[in-house]
Amino acid sequence: MDDIAIELAKKQRAISVAEFFEKNRHLLGFDSKRKAILTCIKEAVDNSLDACEEMNIQPDILVKVSKKGENKYKIIVEDNGPGIVKEQIPKIFGSLLYGSKFHTMKQSRGQQGIGISASVLYAQLTTGTPAKIISKTKTGEAYLYELIIDVTKNAPEIITEVKFENFKKEHGTRIELVIEAVFLNKGQHSVEEFIRRTSLINPHAKITFVGPDGTKKVFKNIANYMPRKAKEIKPHPYGIELGILLRMLKNTNKNTLLSFLQNDFSRIGSSSAKEILKLAKLNSGDKPHNLSVEEADRLLKAMQKVKLMAPPTDCLSPIGQEALKKSMEQELGNPAFVVSLTRAPTVYRGMPFQIEVGLAYDEKFGENTIEVLRFANKVPLSFEKSACVITKTVNSIDWKRYGLKQSGNTVYGPVVLVVHMASVWVPFTSEGKQAIASYPIIEKEIKLALMELGRKLKTYIAKKYKEKKKRERLNIFIKYAPLTAKAIAELTDSNEEDIEKKILNYLNKEQIEVEEKWKCTKRVGKKL
Amino acid sequence: MDDIAIELAKKQRAISVAEFFEKNRHLLGFDSKRKAILTCIKEAVDNSLDACEEMNIQPDILVKVSKKGENKYKIIVEDNGPGIVKEQIPKIFGSLLYGSKFHTMKQSRGQQGIGISASVLYAQLTTGTPAKIISKTKTGEAYLYELIIDVTKNAPEIITEVKFENFKKEHGTRIELVIEAVFLNKGQHSVEEFIRRTSLINPHAKITFVGPDGTKKVFKNIANYMPRKAKEIKPHPYGIELGILLRMLKNTNKNTLLSFLQNDFSRIGSSSAKEILKLAKLNSGDKPHNLSVEEADRLLKAMQKVKLMAPPTDCLSPIGQEALKKSMEQELGNPAFVVSLTRAPTVYRGMPFQIEVGLAYDEKFGENTIEVLRFANKVPLSFEKSACVITKTVNSIDWKRYGLKQSGNTVYGPVVLVVHMASVWVPFTSEGKQAIASYPIIEKEIKLALMELGRKLKTYIAKKYKEKKKRERLNIFIKYAPLTAKAIAELTDSNEEDIEKKILNYLNKEQIEVEEKWKCTKRVGKKL
Repeated sequence: MDDIAIELAKKQRAISVAEFFEKNRHLLGFDSKRKAILTCIKEAVDNSLDACEEMNIQPDILVKVSKKGENKYKIIVEDNGPGIVKEQIPKIFGSLLYGSKFHTMKQSRGQQGIGISASVLYAQLTTGTPAKIISKTKTGEAYLYELIIDVTKNAPEIITEVKFENFKKEHGTRIELVIEAVFLNKGQHSVEEFIRRTSLINPHAKITFVGPDGTKKVFKNIANYMPRKAKEIKPHPYGIELGILLRMLKNTNKNTLLSFLQNDFSRIGSSSAKEILKLAKLNSGDKPHNLSVEEADRLLKAMQKVKLMAPPTDCLSPIGQEALKKSMEQELGNPAFVVSLTRAPTVYRGMPFQIEVGLAYDEKFGENTIEVLRFANKVPLSFEKSACVITKTVNSIDWKRYGLKQSGNTVYGPVVLVVHMASVWVPFTSEGKQAIASYPIIEKEIKLALMELGRKLKTYIAKKYKEKKKRERLNIFIKYAPLTAKAIAELTDSNEEDIEKKILNYLNKEQIEVEEKWKCTKRVGKKL
Repeated sequence: MDDIAIELAKKQRAISVAEFFEKNRHLLGFDSKRKAILTCIKEAVDNSLDACEEMNIQPDILVKVSKKGENKYKIIVEDNGPGIVKEQIPKIFGSLLYGSKFHTMKQSRGQQGIGISASVLYAQLTTGTPAKIISKTKTGEAYLYELIIDVTKNAPEIITEVKFENFKKEHGTRIELVIEAVFLNKGQHSVEEFIRRTSLINPHAKITFVGPDGTKKVFKNIANYMPRKAKEIKPHPYGIELGILLRMLKNTNKNTLLSFLQNDFSRIGSSSAKEILKLAKLNSGDKPHNLSVEEADRLLKAMQKVKLMAPPTDCLSPIGQEALKKSMEQELGNPAFVVSLTRAPTVYRGMPFQIEVGLAYDEKFGENTIEVLRFANKVPLSFEKSACVITKTVNSIDWKRYGLKQSGNTVYGPVVLVVHMASVWVPFTSEGKQAIASYPIIEKEIKLALMELGRKLKTYIAKKYKEKKKRERLNIFIKYAPLTAKAIAELTDSNEEDIEKKILNYLNKEQIEVEEKWKCTKRVGKKL
C-alpha cells in the first residue's frame, strides 16, 4: 500500500536563508549587473558610515573600483571606523541575517544584517571569488580574512585567516569583492553619482572615489559638523502587536505587571501604568509570565487606549537644516537659491520619524523636469522611484502655485529637491530598500515640508522677476544714455560727454549690484 | 582604553528568519487586514492543491470562514490530499523556509516553504491563537496538533499533540487559523472571488466555500479532466551561474567531469559533454571536486556556448486549451464567445515556461474596462497589478485592431481575459508573489498568444455585426409586413390576412434562428 505522504516526507527539508536569497537575489537589489555594483558599494558604505557614527568619528571612506575582466570588477571599500572584533568578522560577512541593528530601536542605515553578506554571496555566485576583509580595532591587531558563504548552512567558510601587518590605520575595516557588473561612468545610476548623493546627505563624511580609469575624486565633508548620535529607545505601546506583547511578557525580567509596563516600554510612567492596568482589569502585582492570551489582549487594548506621550525622538539623527543647506551648496555647485527645512519628529505606528527637505534653484539646472533626490536614513534611494511615497507626494503638490510649470504628474523648472526620511524603522516596500511605503502621516509630513519651501521659492521667483524687470529698465536707460546726455547738455549748456559718463557710471553701478545678486548666467556648476 | 568594536561585538547576533518576516510581514502579503485573509486562504489552498496533484487525485477542498469577534475570523481549509506524516507536521507549519518544493525543479504553487508558516505567524501575532492542524495519511493515523512558532528560533512550539479519532476522511489535512482580518463579501478582493478564480484556473478541483453568514457555494470541477502531472527535471546549463556550478561540482557523486555533465544536467548527452570539455580545455576523466575556480569558469562558459536542446517541458503542467475554455464557460456563466490557447513551452534563463490565455466576450460583461485575470502556476494574482508583465503586455497590444475601444493604457469592451504563466520558477517581483517580472521572452509569448485570440475576436465581432444588420433588416420587414401584405393582396386579389400571416411566419422563423445564435440580451450571468 503506497502512501504518497511518506514519499513527500523524504523530500521535506529546511531551506537556509542564504539559499533563499541566492535564488531570490533580485529581492536584494542584485537583479542586474548595473544595479549589483551599486548595491555592493551601498551596503559596504552604509556599514562604514554606521560604524563611524557608533564611534562618533568623522568618516573618511575610500571607494575604489577597478576592472578585472569583461563585466568583472573589483570593489574596495575602506573606512576609519572602529573595526570589527576578530571573532565577529566571519559571522558578519559570511552569514545572512546577522548583525547588531535588527533588535535596536534607533536610526541606522543597516537594519537586517543581510546587505553585506548578500554582496559576498553575489561575488561568489558570479565570479567564484571569496570576499577579502581586513579589519583592526583600536586595541586589537589587524586580521585578514578570505571567506565565502556555505550557502546550504548560511555559515562562513574561512579560506584564509592571518594577522595583517601592513594595515596603516589605527582602526578601520576594508572589504574587497570581485563581482560581475556593468560600470556606468555617468548618469543617475552611476557609481560616482551614488557617492555624490551619499556625500550630499552625509555632510560630515569625507569620501574618496577612485574609478576604473584611475581618476580620483574627493567628496569633502563640511567643516565643523557632526550629526547628533542616535540613542536607543524602548518600544512604544502604540506600535506593538499582540504576538510581540506576549513574547515581551514571557521574556521580561520584571516580576510584576506594574514594573514590566514602566520598564520595558517608553513613555509609560507610574500613573499611566496604573491607568492601563485599571482599564485592563489587571492587578499591579500580577506576574507577567502568568498572563493568559485574553488578559494580554486586554492589556494591549488598554495600552493603546490610554493617552501617552509620543516616543522620545533622540533615537533619530537628522542632518539638520543648516548642514543640509551647506551640503547642497557644496555638492550642487553653489546654486543661486537654496533653502532647507527639518520638520519636528513625529510618529507612525509607534515609530518615530522625521522629514527633512531641501530645494535648490538655479537656471543652470535647466528647464526640464525637476530633479528629486530621495533619501532614507541618510542613504540615497536610486531605484523604484514610482513606488515611493516621496515621488507620489512631490507629484501631488500644486507647484504652479509656487512659480513652476506642471503638467499632469510632471513638474518642470531649474530645481533640485532633496527629501530625507529619518526613522527608527523605515517602512520600505521591499528588501531592496529603494522605496518608502505610503503611510498617510509620512505623506503629510513631506507635503507640509515641501509646501513651506515652495512658498519661499515663490517669494524668490517673484523677487527675481522684479529684479529682472529692473535690469531691463536699466538697459533701456543705458541705451538712451547718449540721447539723454545730449538733451541735458543742450538744456543746461554743459558738456555732453561729461554728462553721458556720469549717467553711465551711475547706471553701471546699479547694474553691477543687480548682477552681483543674480549671478544666474555666470556660474558653471553641475546638476546632480 | 575603550574600544567601541568590543561594545558593538556584544550586540551582534543572529536574526531568525521568523523574526525577520515577523517584522517585515508586508513582504509576504500581510500588510493589511483585508489582504491578510486572502493570503492565509491562498497559502492553505495552494498547499492543498499541490498535495492532491502529488497524489494524482481530484482535489475536494473546503474553505470555511467564520466570525470570531470584531475584525477577527477563523479560517478552516480542509483537503482530501495525501496528508502529512506526523513528524513533519510541526516543521511544515511551525518553521519558515521548510518544504519540499524549493529544491525541486518542477511546476508547483508553493516554492519557498514560507507561506503557510507565515500565516501561522500572522495568526499568533495578531490574535495570540495557535494554529490547529489535523492530518491523516493513507497508512497512518490522524493526529491533531496545536502549535505556535518560537519566533527567535524559527521552530515550532507544540501546545497539543493527540491522536484524532473523528477525522472522517481516508486521508487529508485540515488547518484552522484565527486571525485579525477584514472580510469582504464581494468585489475583486473578496474571498469568494479569490476562490472563483482559483476554481477557474484549476478546472479539476472542487472547492466548497462557506462564508461567515453560513451561505455555502460549491465551485464544481469539470468532468473527466485531470491535468498532467509535472515531472522533476535537472537544471539546464543555460540557467546556471558560477557559484551554483561550483557547489554542484563539490556535491556531485560522480567521479569524472564527463559523467558529472551527463548526469547532473538536463540535455547534455555524451557528445555534447565531450564538446563542452574540449571547448573548456578540460579532460573527461578530471575529478569534479578538483576543479579550480578558473577551470569551473571555463567549463561554465563552454556549457553556455555549446548548442543544446531546450530543457524538457514535462516539468510543466498546463491547464490545456480545451479545459481552460470549458472552465471559463462554467465560471463566467456561459459567455456568448469563448476562445482559449495554450502556447508551446519555451525557456527564460534556462527555466521552462508556458503561456495560456483565454478570452470571453459577452454583452453582459458591460462596456467598461476589460477585465484581466492574472494567474501564475494556477494561482490567481490579486494585487500589484501594475507591476506585472501580464498587465503591461495586455496594455501594449493595439486592441482597436481587434474591434475593442482603447484609450491610452485602458482597453474597453465586454471582455474577460485570462492569462496564465506556468513555470518551474516564476520570476515574481517580490515574496508576496503577486506580480511577474518583465522578461522580454515572457512578454513576447503573452503578446503572441493574446494577438491570436484577438484575431479570432475580430472575426467574431465582424460576424456579429453582420448578423445584427440582418436582424435590423428583418425588423424592418416585420414592421412593413401589414403594408406589404395589403399591397400583395390588392395586386393578386388574395386574402390580406393570410398573406400577412405567411410573411410574419417566415420572418419570425428567420429571427428566431438569429436570436438563437446571438443570445446576447437574454442571458443572465456574472462577470468575475
